[in-house]
Parts: sequence; C-alpha cells; structure tokens
Amino acid sequence: MKTRRSDRLVDMTRYLLERPHQLISLSYFTKRYDSAKSSISEDLTILKRTFQNRGTGILETVPGAAGGTRFIPYILRENAEQFVNQMCTDLSEEDRYLPGGYVYMSDVLGQPRILNEIGRIMATQYLNDPIDVVMTVATKGVPIAQSVAFYLGVPFVIARHNAQITEGSTVSVNYVSASTERIERMALSKRSIAPNSRILIVDDYMKGGGTISGMRSLVDEFDSQLVGVSVFAEGAYSGERLINRYTSLLHVDTANKQIDVQPGNYLDQIFGDQNLTVKGKEK
Amino acid sequence: MKTRRSDRLVDMTRYLLERPHQLISLSYFTKRYDSAKSSISEDLTILKRTFQNRGTGILETVPGAAGGTRFIPYILRENAEQFVNQMCTDLSEEDRYLPGGYVYMSDVLGQPRILNEIGRIMATQYLNDPIDVVMTVATKGVPIAQSVAFYLGVPFVIARHNAQITEGSTVSVNYVSASTERIERMALSKRSIAPNSRILIVDDYMKGGGTISGMRSLVDEFDSQLVGVSVFAEGAYSGERLINRYTSLLHVDTANKQIDVQPGNYLDQIFGDQNLTVKGKEK
Repeated sequence: MKTRRSDRLVDMTRYLLERPHQLISLSYFTKRYDSAKSSISEDLTILKRTFQNRGTGILETVPGAAGGTRFIPYILRENAEQFVNQMCTDLSEEDRYLPGGYVYMSDVLGQPRILNEIGRIMATQYLNDPIDVVMTVATKGVPIAQSVAFYLGVPFVIARHNAQITEGSTVSVNYVSASTERIERMALSKRSIAPNSRILIVDDYMKGGGTISGMRSLVDEFDSQLVGVSVFAEGAYSGERLINRYTSLLHVDTANKQIDVQPGNYLDQIFGDQNLTVKGKEK
Repeated sequence: MKTRRSDRLVDMTRYLLERPHQLISLSYFTKRYDSAKSSISEDLTILKRTFQNRGTGILETVPGAAGGTRFIPYILRENAEQFVNQMCTDLSEEDRYLPGGYVYMSDVLGQPRILNEIGRIMATQYLNDPIDVVMTVATKGVPIAQSVAFYLGVPFVIARHNAQITEGSTVSVNYVSASTERIERMALSKRSIAPNSRILIVDDYMKGGGTISGMRSLVDEFDSQLVGVSVFAEGAYSGERLINRYTSLLHVDTANKQIDVQPGNYLDQIFGDQNLTVKGKEK
C-alpha cells in the first residue's frame, strides 16, 4: 500500500535519526513506502531543510547507483554553549564537593538525555575527521563513549584495569598515574580493534592525563592512529599534563574547597572565531 | 514565522523521539512552530498513526490544562523475535568460545545500534509498570543500563566492586558469587537513589545469579523496591539460581566447548500466548 507523504516524513525521520552516518539507498525507501523515487527525493529535500533549520544535522545526498542518503548529526554553537553553561551551573552546587577535591558528577552522568547531548557535542568535532572506533576506560567513561559512538555511527571499546575472563586474550600496557605517580595497568581485548584504526579516546574526567596516556599506549599497541581526545571535564592541574592535545567541555577547579566549574576549551576549539564549516558548506 | 506542516512533522518526530516518557505540553509546540493548537493536534494524530503502524511506540495524549503528549517507545513481537534470532546466530560463531566456557560478546555489546535495540526490547516489558531507576554493576552492564534507561525516560546508577573516591559516601553489601562461592562486595553511592524508588536491575550476563543478588541487597539497603531483573544473556547453570524471577533475551550453553545460543525466556514472558496490551488497548 502506498504511503502518504505525511506518514513517510514521520517514519523516514525516525529511520534516519536511528542510523547516524549510515548510507541508506533510495530504493530502500521506495520499497519501504511503495512510492516513486521522485516522491522520496522530495521527502528528503524536506527533511534536509528541516534538519538544517533546526540544527539537527546534515542530510547528505550521495549520487550514483551506489548512492543514497546519510544523516550526519551535529550541534550548533548556540545549543552547545547553552548546554555547557547549564552544566557549569548544575555542577557548581556546593554539596557536590567531595574530600580530595573531587566533584560528584555520577548523577549527571547517569542521565541518558544529558549523555546524548554530550555525545552529540563531542561527535560534532569529528564531522570531517573520520573515526573508526571510540575508546574509553572502565567505568565512568563508558556511557560517554557509547553516546559519542552512536552519533559517529561506530563501535566503542572499553579498556579495563582488571582484565576479565570474558575478554579473551588481551593486550596490556603500564602507565604512570600523573597525580599519584603510581604505576597502573590497563588491558583491552586483543580482538577488539583492527590494525590501522582511527581512534577517538573519551573519558569523563582528566587531571594529569595519566589514564589517557595509558589509552594512547594501547592505541600504539594496536598499530592504530589517535585522532583525538575528548573529556567531559578537565580538573585544574598545576603540573605538566601527560596529554597536551585534548578537548574538554568543562574545566573544574576545587581550590579552597570551593567548586568552580567553567567552560572547557571545546567551544573555542570547535567553533573558534569562525563558523564551523562542513565539507565546504557553512552551517 | 509559521512553520509548514511537513517541517513540523519532521521536527516534532525528532523532538518526541529524543524524549521518551516526557510530557510535552501542546503550548510548547504551538509556540515552537507559531501554529494554532488545532494544527498541532492534527500533526500529533499523524505521528500517532505512523508510530503505531510502524511499531515505533505509543503517542499518548493527556487531556486537560496540565496535559500534553508523551511518546512511549516499544517494540513489536515480530521485531523483537527477529532481533533475538539474529543475536543467536551472531553469538554462535565458533571463534567466540573462551576458556572457562565463556562466550566473547564485547564486540556485540560495543555497538550502539544493537544496544539501542536491547534497550527498547527490555523497556517494552515495563510499559505498564513504572520504573524510577535502572541499576547495574560495572562494567559490562553499563551500556545496557544506559540504553534501557533512555527508553524508560529515567536515570541509571552503577554499583561497583571497588568503591571510588569520586562516588562520595557509599553503601556496601556483601554477596556470595554462586559459581565461585567466594564472598564479594559491591558499593553504590549513597546519594544515588531516593528511598522508595522502583528499581529495574539489568546486566549483560547471569549465571548463578550471585551478582544480581548483590544488587538486590543494595535495593533493600536503599529502602527501595525491586520491580524486575533483565539480563541480555543467561548462561546454562545446573545448580539452584539465587534469582528466580528474571527475564533473559538469550540462553547460552557452552557444554562440550560448543556454543549454543537460544532465545531466552523474554519472548514467552512478554508476549506469551496473547498479544501485549497497553493500557487496555491492543497493540
């Protein structure tokens, strides 16, 4: 049965939103809705316009026999800024202060809608920089990795401090924790990453960068390439960090037992003084 | 500027899909699209029809001044069955066998789209059984918890074997691992769950049920109520399980070093011999 345009628009929107970065052939849609190619093309024009006007993402059209359409989510500067500022306010609440100068963030990082926003924001940085795999370390980086990986349309892998029997053979590395100067160890399942993968490392929190330098060693061990490092929050750190090139959404300082949360370097790095351009087109 | 119907349909679909279980007032949409209430109502009728026809979920209408609309995602039996069967095939690959009778599943549980399906399937069981919080234990249950929590529109919390400084004060419990008979310990941040919460426990894998019985003790410690236990896979187990009432998507047997993955008890439990009904309406 032929589908009405309005029904097609609703269902196509859902179908594409659930599959970021996946190429969907036009003929898939013509069959799904028993509709002519010309109708589907008109539908896609409407989706493309609305996605652009609302800052949802790009609907890319790939011409040719092997072509189709691909949804690439992003976030606009204005929305990213709003989210970061909201996080600064929420995480600055006094009673979040923990002994040792830490900030309680588990409740915030246990909210799927917030995690989705974090993922969408982090993924926007890699619009033109293909990623094959997102890597994180257990435990609190996991939900962030999952969300970024969804928006990039790729899998994620979890390094662990204590290798589990359910991981099979693993590759392990030693690294020095920058803050405690202790030697630590992390492992990753041997079959989890193909050689020559382009890897994005994400984590919830970075202080001296020790844990992330451990993951960087893992990237090397897997003969792969580190494309970027994105953390939700960086903590104020007086020493020299083991990681120089990274992106942070937030900067957290807890000197004098006062929590001070400010925007990290993300907004400047990504949007800087010019607008973000996507494959030559201005957003 | 007034928005065209086609644009409204696309954007409303996105907006609602991103916010499962959240009540959105009609006036929010009339303002967002500068459109009359009657137009928005017509749009919602279209969305409702398409969501139902395509097995996406229910679009509930709440009448009255404090009313609005609420999207409740579910999965149809046919789609759930298809997914479970696909998992049985994928996880039965010979080279997944690990020493000790385990099955390598980390690659599958590192794919966001698969996790989304798992979440949607597990959430369908609790359509009429409100959940306040999803609980899991680090590490491999985390992505599942995140996904289920998204579809239920609630937060998730992560119990850990090694309490972290970033969790603040914690509540700990001891439990006996059913398979190793060792005593283990897990902890959960004290401020993570309000008393009298209705809790759903999820995990990736259950054998004797020891870990899950540990989480059940945590539920008690937080003066809360256990509503259900959902696991991605249950392993064949000859002894008596510490947990009787649970739902599994898959049943994994590795006797004689052969992997045999069959559907778990989910499909029968949820869909049984009658169709799933939602608030009196048949799906």
